[in-house]
Amino acid sequence: MSFIDLNYRPSSSDLVCRFFVEPSPGSSIESACEDIAAESSIGTWTDISTMDSGIGEKLGPHVFEIDKGMVSIAYPSDLFEAENMPCILSSVAGNIFGMKAVENLRLVDVFFPKKLARSFPGPEFGIYGVRGLLGVRKRPLVGTIIKPKLGLPSGRHAEVAYESWVGGCDIVKDDENLTSQRFNPFEERVLKTLEARDRAEEESGEGKVYMPNVSSETGEMLRRAEFVRDHGGRYVMVDIVTVGFSGLQALIKADLGLVIHGHRAMHAAFTRNKKHGISMLVLAKLSRLVGVDQLHIGTGVGKMEGPRQEVLGIRDAIVGSFFDLKPVFPVSSGGLHPGLVPPLVELMGCDVIIQAGGGVHGHPQGTRNGAVAMRQAVDAVMENISLQEYAGSHPELKAALEKWTSS
Amino acid sequence: MSFIDLNYRPSSSDLVCRFFVEPSPGSSIESACEDIAAESSIGTWTDISTMDSGIGEKLGPHVFEIDKGMVSIAYPSDLFEAENMPCILSSVAGNIFGMKAVENLRLVDVFFPKKLARSFPGPEFGIYGVRGLLGVRKRPLVGTIIKPKLGLPSGRHAEVAYESWVGGCDIVKDDENLTSQRFNPFEERVLKTLEARDRAEEESGEGKVYMPNVSSETGEMLRRAEFVRDHGGRYVMVDIVTVGFSGLQALIKADLGLVIHGHRAMHAAFTRNKKHGISMLVLAKLSRLVGVDQLHIGTGVGKMEGPRQEVLGIRDAIVGSFFDLKPVFPVSSGGLHPGLVPPLVELMGCDVIIQAGGGVHGHPQGTRNGAVAMRQAVDAVMENISLQEYAGSHPELKAALEKWTSS
Repeated sequence: MSFIDLNYRPSSSDLVCRFFVEPSPGSSIESACEDIAAESSIGTWTDISTMDSGIGEKLGPHVFEIDKGMVSIAYPSDLFEAENMPCILSSVAGNIFGMKAVENLRLVDVFFPKKLARSFPGPEFGIYGVRGLLGVRKRPLVGTIIKPKLGLPSGRHAEVAYESWVGGCDIVKDDENLTSQRFNPFEERVLKTLEARDRAEEESGEGKVYMPNVSSETGEMLRRAEFVRDHGGRYVMVDIVTVGFSGLQALIKADLGLVIHGHRAMHAAFTRNKKHGISMLVLAKLSRLVGVDQLHIGTGVGKMEGPRQEVLGIRDAIVGSFFDLKPVFPVSSGGLHPGLVPPLVELMGCDVIIQAGGGVHGHPQGTRNGAVAMRQAVDAVMENISLQEYAGSHPELKAALEKWTSS
Repeated sequence: MSFIDLNYRPSSSDLVCRFFVEPSPGSSIESACEDIAAESSIGTWTDISTMDSGIGEKLGPHVFEIDKGMVSIAYPSDLFEAENMPCILSSVAGNIFGMKAVENLRLVDVFFPKKLARSFPGPEFGIYGVRGLLGVRKRPLVGTIIKPKLGLPSGRHAEVAYESWVGGCDIVKDDENLTSQRFNPFEERVLKTLEARDRAEEESGEGKVYMPNVSSETGEMLRRAEFVRDHGGRYVMVDIVTVGFSGLQALIKADLGLVIHGHRAMHAAFTRNKKHGISMLVLAKLSRLVGVDQLHIGTGVGKMEGPRQEVLGIRDAIVGSFFDLKPVFPVSSGGLHPGLVPPLVELMGCDVIIQAGGGVHGHPQGTRNGAVAMRQAVDAVMENISLQEYAGSHPELKAALEKWTSS
């Protein structure tokens, strides 16, 4: 049974995957493609007595493009269970990465057919829902992550959050590895920080949101999310990779009316090597399908790896038209400070959440002024004034630029 | 704040990680280590006003070994939430893989301190529980995966399972990408296959088990597992990577009295590159902690990549003494057939589950004789007789060897 058919044109019900394939030494790309197509669908390494031609005709994949290592495979939708992301991943991103037939293999992109895509809910809020909730129509949103990543007791955590909000942050989020450690238990933190949010909203006259990290075993995660909702929270954040799709889908299915912020901690373990693993673009598309409202996609600048073109491609995939799914709010985070706001907004446009942790709390005059400086940088960009010029009349911005951009 | 302290000796409450570190061009390994230690614990890319020395003293990590690219870091247990694997991964295997400071970074091994390890349940059954359940004391267990991977309707699925069991398989499992597709819905398949199991048990006089794949959104996964239990099933299988730790921990916490078989589909997306990502050894250790009873660890032979020494190291980690955690039953699967049983058992010992899909259903005389041949191969090994000799009086084995080992 051969799965290569270069004359095949994908049907409207096919799921199409684009792979980069580097065959093992001594193996041809065609033979590697046969093995990949078989292992990711209906085949195995030897001919079997239980196969019949009807199965091959109905469910067989089609390798329809092989070009300089790039390979496109069309899979009939019936191979997959609707609304079950683990099932889909176990097929098209499962055993194949460990096959001897390939030296390297990367799932570069994935294209969902309409019906399968629509079996997933997509974001409930997305860009416009979040903007409505915060009452901020046009400018980039400014967020911070409470720092140090770990170690603050809950009272101090809430206080730092308060300072961030009144300084000008729209959003305060927990760090990806803060869940419910003994020095800062979840419920205590949420209560104190939401109380601080209320004070900050009143004092600033602006909408403010807090994104507590609920990442944990699914039952506990749902209890924590309900706790957040029951105490006036409107957001939760979740580490989508370390939690996994089974838990993530459960959280979204629980339909608690909360905005879901997706942090991607651990993604680079499989996205970074350009020849092997799974691209961030694929992870982003899957996240949109399952219903993440906001997603970290990189900065193109800052402390994390990730080239500009790749970040833009991911942005387009989560923001652009995709059946009737709402656009996901792109989040840039990692090594950001006020001096990086202009190039970041130039790259990403205004529909971006700018998350700065060290870039706020590392301000020479402390957290509140760090938040002030971030907002000033955003205001300068929106008013089309250079940071240097704006800093002339805004000392907080000036101090930030002196710390992070002079040299 | 420096985290490197080569005189530090890990305390009994430290979690220790061993990394392979390749710094980015122009960066020293020491500076990469500082960045990794900071990002995986309490630090960030810049000094911050909200840090105080008490936090560093209590929660600071210690890089205590740097040797030819191998780096050991000790993390105080208080950095982590007990019994929360996503939290632990988001710390020590989170953002660090994407840092600009490293060209490649691999989490090679992890050592849990007693108290943190004991916050996890470990396997309920493990090797001895499974052996007791099946009534097989010494020999390797023989399992098959129903093939083709996808496409059989539920009735045919059950029939192939029946043939496998009466031929001699102890275990029949679903394939990793079969969940509840329309051609073979979950409940229908489970009912028919468990009924076939009962018939096979009666006919053979042996204990038989069926491992239906419950991988899906957590709530649905729990419903499916309960359905299996309510209809006399004793096992479920789950794709631990594509499901993720949040769902996996929920399934185990549900405490349904079911043996949990862990399939590792997708692991090679991050385990295969020896310089980057996370090792299979780490994934195996984490799986044992959370309570997986059986785990795919490779074959050392067959269609999947994975060198012998690595497979043995993983085997030792899940079987060897580890506080009071029960040993996980190692599963070898991927391209196995009767001819590979002797070298496999020589490598792995008798405490192994030998899963052959194509190596059963690809037998020239069909599934039942394929299963007969697999058991004959195991019997030959247990009786210390060569396969060639044993095949002289066992035609099913002979036919298998002729198909797969002659050339």
